[in-house]
Amino acid sequence: MASSCIFCKIIKGQIPSMKIFESDKTLAFLDIGPLSKGHSLIIPKYHGAKLHDIPDDQLAEVLSVTKKIAIAQGIQDYNVLQNNGRIAHQEVDHVHFHLIPKPNESEGLGIIWQTQDADKGALSKLLEDIKSKM
Amino acid sequence: MASSCIFCKIIKGQIPSMKIFESDKTLAFLDIGPLSKGHSLIIPKYHGAKLHDIPDDQLAEVLSVTKKIAIAQGIQDYNVLQNNGRIAHQEVDHVHFHLIPKPNESEGLGIIWQTQDADKGALSKLLEDIKSKM
Repeated sequence: MASSCIFCKIIKGQIPSMKIFESDKTLAFLDIGPLSKGHSLIIPKYHGAKLHDIPDDQLAEVLSVTKKIAIAQGIQDYNVLQNNGRIAHQEVDHVHFHLIPKPNESEGLGIIWQTQDADKGALSKLLEDIKSKM
Repeated sequence: MASSCIFCKIIKGQIPSMKIFESDKTLAFLDIGPLSKGHSLIIPKYHGAKLHDIPDDQLAEVLSVTKKIAIAQGIQDYNVLQNNGRIAHQEVDHVHFHLIPKPNESEGLGIIWQTQDADKGALSKLLEDIKSKM
């Protein structure tokens, strides 16, 4: 827990939230600044700023809870997004997964998908480098 | 397995891939149309189009593998994205998680974040509705 973290305060009940689900490790609540109706946040209770800071066992329920909320909402089209770093659009430094319904083109998450030319040789080199560090 | 699915073909080795990690349940490989250097895909081997189609136990490793690849790449800023439905930018109908490094403003995932005014009463009503279906 981090005393200055708004999500830790929500977990501790010091700040109210629109709680959808809670277990020992996981909390889910409605985003009050939604991109679309039903925009929800699913968070591990363990405090860490970025995904790579959270122990595996503390992440174990996140996707099943996300699924459960999507099914409860009856949605078919949606994005699941987890941002790491200001430049990647992270606003609260406690890992959180957005479940964002996409009911139409104008609501929900907007995505800009600008692919790069990928040189096969460079990709192969990168692959070997990543594999050597796994 | 779905015979016409390109990711099932990759899993079966019928189409080559730049494989980073493989286990009984999970496969990870480089995206050959990357948004940034290191753009990777992490997929459950179980075939299903959308997140809510995949059994919980088949999703269990996805986030730990995603973490492992982020750590191996040594990246601090990145997005994790899973799209469901054409309108939500899903291009292959087999659940896949994108790990997209965000090295600078112009590379990686572009996000448009247009929040909606959320009426507290409407949110409360929605919350009760979702909770009743959990």
